[in-house]
Amino acid sequence: MIRRLCLALSLTCLAAPTLAQEEPAPTRIPDAAIATAETLRERALAGNAAWDLVESLTTEVGHRLAGSEGDARAVAWAVERFRALGFDEVRTEPVTFPVWIRGEERGEVLTPFPQHLALTALGGSVGTEGAPLDAEIVHFESLDALRAVEDGSLAGRIAFISQRTERHRDGRGYGFSVPARSNGASVAAAKGASALLIRSIGTSNDRFPHTGNLRYADDVPRIPAAAISNPDADLLLNMLRRGQPVTVRMQMDARTVGEYTSQNVIGEVRGRERPDEVVLIGGHLDSWDLGTGAIDDGAGVAITMAAGALIAALPERPRRTIRVVAFANEEQGLIGARQYAERHAGAVRQHLIAAESDFGAGRIYALRSNAPDHAWGAIERIGTVLAPLGIAVERGVGGPGPDLIPLVSRGMTWAQLAQDGTDYFDYHHTPNDTLDKIEPAALDQQVAAYAAFAWLAAEAEGEFGSRPKGP
Amino acid sequence: MIRRLCLALSLTCLAAPTLAQEEPAPTRIPDAAIATAETLRERALAGNAAWDLVESLTTEVGHRLAGSEGDARAVAWAVERFRALGFDEVRTEPVTFPVWIRGEERGEVLTPFPQHLALTALGGSVGTEGAPLDAEIVHFESLDALRAVEDGSLAGRIAFISQRTERHRDGRGYGFSVPARSNGASVAAAKGASALLIRSIGTSNDRFPHTGNLRYADDVPRIPAAAISNPDADLLLNMLRRGQPVTVRMQMDARTVGEYTSQNVIGEVRGRERPDEVVLIGGHLDSWDLGTGAIDDGAGVAITMAAGALIAALPERPRRTIRVVAFANEEQGLIGARQYAERHAGAVRQHLIAAESDFGAGRIYALRSNAPDHAWGAIERIGTVLAPLGIAVERGVGGPGPDLIPLVSRGMTWAQLAQDGTDYFDYHHTPNDTLDKIEPAALDQQVAAYAAFAWLAAEAEGEFGSRPKGP
Repeated sequence: MIRRLCLALSLTCLAAPTLAQEEPAPTRIPDAAIATAETLRERALAGNAAWDLVESLTTEVGHRLAGSEGDARAVAWAVERFRALGFDEVRTEPVTFPVWIRGEERGEVLTPFPQHLALTALGGSVGTEGAPLDAEIVHFESLDALRAVEDGSLAGRIAFISQRTERHRDGRGYGFSVPARSNGASVAAAKGASALLIRSIGTSNDRFPHTGNLRYADDVPRIPAAAISNPDADLLLNMLRRGQPVTVRMQMDARTVGEYTSQNVIGEVRGRERPDEVVLIGGHLDSWDLGTGAIDDGAGVAITMAAGALIAALPERPRRTIRVVAFANEEQGLIGARQYAERHAGAVRQHLIAAESDFGAGRIYALRSNAPDHAWGAIERIGTVLAPLGIAVERGVGGPGPDLIPLVSRGMTWAQLAQDGTDYFDYHHTPNDTLDKIEPAALDQQVAAYAAFAWLAAEAEGEFGSRPKGP
Repeated sequence: MIRRLCLALSLTCLAAPTLAQEEPAPTRIPDAAIATAETLRERALAGNAAWDLVESLTTEVGHRLAGSEGDARAVAWAVERFRALGFDEVRTEPVTFPVWIRGEERGEVLTPFPQHLALTALGGSVGTEGAPLDAEIVHFESLDALRAVEDGSLAGRIAFISQRTERHRDGRGYGFSVPARSNGASVAAAKGASALLIRSIGTSNDRFPHTGNLRYADDVPRIPAAAISNPDADLLLNMLRRGQPVTVRMQMDARTVGEYTSQNVIGEVRGRERPDEVVLIGGHLDSWDLGTGAIDDGAGVAITMAAGALIAALPERPRRTIRVVAFANEEQGLIGARQYAERHAGAVRQHLIAAESDFGAGRIYALRSNAPDHAWGAIERIGTVLAPLGIAVERGVGGPGPDLIPLVSRGMTWAQLAQDGTDYFDYHHTPNDTLDKIEPAALDQQVAAYAAFAWLAAEAEGEFGSRPKGP
């Protein structure tokens, strides 16, 4: 998952799509579909299909940094798995983007107390031009505090933002702290700084720096930007408290070189009546390079692939197509999702409803949607099948998974199967994002929810409010 | 703390010292001493003296790998702090040892699934001679399983031991798994292996490899030896389960170069009646290089320094001398402790009793000792002052801190203020051994225990059974 959380979304995403003048008839879930959904739910709980997939992806591919060799291996893996799982149609759609390379990187305090710093470049950062960058740090408690100083006042120094990320089930702490990562470099550059250092946007005190994407503004120089671990941020604060200047060395080979074409990988269980209308579920196939991309987002890919596979194994096809998308390059700016939305911009109405799993591997506790009034009864009916999984229906809160945003902004209705993210930001974007952080039974619960949701939405009589609007 | 745990000690350590033919009179703790000990206990609980010390050591010095620049800074730090804390005498005693350097290191799986491995050299390991060492791994579930194969049978391959370390309050899981680290390299070399890889001797699933010392046998080649993190060990097992050969690349610059002379740093509160008799408390000043040596053993140094300082701040000196020792180079084989024991070999009887803090920063739950019958009543009396701290007196279990072993084997009586080590092996010897892992109030409880213990032992009428015996 990248920089934006559901809660930080613009209201356009949350609000119900603008409807045509006449109110559609209420959308209904046929009774016959309920029994099948319950069967899917119980089969999911009885298996370990998603675990097997994420174990395979993390073991046989490992990290899948966009544009890396792992990216290509992951695409091949996904194509092969969709086929092996019995999907009716498997295809890829190209996604092109610049290639960012981390390279070697190193951080240390030079004075007054020489010490190593656990540092990693933010995704998209420039490097230090082949030489160490040595400078005094200037501390800011938040991005807003950095914004408040005069332009040019940090010349020759490194801006250091120490804001902490708070722990919450819904992950909202990330929304508050992540602007330092997304925008801090350009704010610091406007102040004249040579580089940006931030406390990792993460909730754990493990000595791992958290990577994640930044965005450079066009009108200021691009300066190197890195995160240090929570214990290292504490260390710098403890040094600064002694009242002496603290100088730091950053050395980073990070750079952007050329272009790469990856693929959105798509597996479909084709609809028996309306094959051109789709219920879209998915996750993103790429990951950062520090861990093995288990919770971000191997889990989401595995959960939604396994849910689709359960449906593909039924004797009957769903009324509409169930499309599972493993999106390319989410981490560096929803690039696969944006290119998917452009390619399918004319098919907003055909995307009945969509749900993405990209918030780790914690259990789902809520079904949410921006479906309009005429479809809300159907959402609640779907909720009755999810209720035994500990899932409540909630209205007026939440938002779509990040890869859905480009199509949601074009008018597609979203659903959210909201996961417990209490520990998500402990591991997310760090070397600690590994298979052992996933509880197999929690994956099964999520496969059950996605399979039942997708089946029921695909069986609906009527639709969920998707209507084209300006992008 | 290095390779040996109390529980793994030979029985000579546990057993009461051999006594002279006549049974000494029972050792007594004077009533007047109890009130002072209670005052010390309450003052410790009211302060944060040990926290301030460990914050200072980890911030101003950081890691203190024996022979590194941090070692020298730590010695200067300890001398300065002992003086500032009001100790009557501060001195250093030289400790000489070979210098081990970690250098750069890197691990990866080459085939069948290229992936990074979080790897670190075991302390004392040789490197890979400036080139990558590429070889197939052969898996063993334990050191015993490795021992069981034929000599020479692993030619050209890397032995991989995957035994897990179990979590226990008293840390006994470490005793079971650590022989793979201590002796695995030479066992593997005898089988013909090119290198040794072990699952980290640690209880956390954080993706940190755990370093720690190894011992090479004299009669087999010295081969490179490294630990990989728990998640990486799982990863290798998952790859191996697929039935294809797994080849790994190890590249390590580790080497031993020349000699260094560090110092045991000693602070004394001189005895008012018997200044040549000492109650010894302490910890070790060196650390591994990956973290900042907060729990291993900044905490132990800070606790015992702070306890001594509380006594130094009393209006009256203790009857005997209280000697706080910050031992040099514990990690690479109790080197400071061995040289201390040689230097003071003639003064076993003058070392009344000794206790070392070297098991992290968790609260103390038991007072233990090998004091003989005539002194046991005094141990129990000391226990009455520690009881309000949640500390029970236990007999017939436990053992001395590692740096006490050389003198205990010469006949010195030990006490153990046993700490809760439930999470000790999560952090120990990893980059995660940082200040934030310490709870300040837990340090205060320990300062209270050490101060009361040291004062009461120093005030005792009679002794605790220390008697010279063969080394």
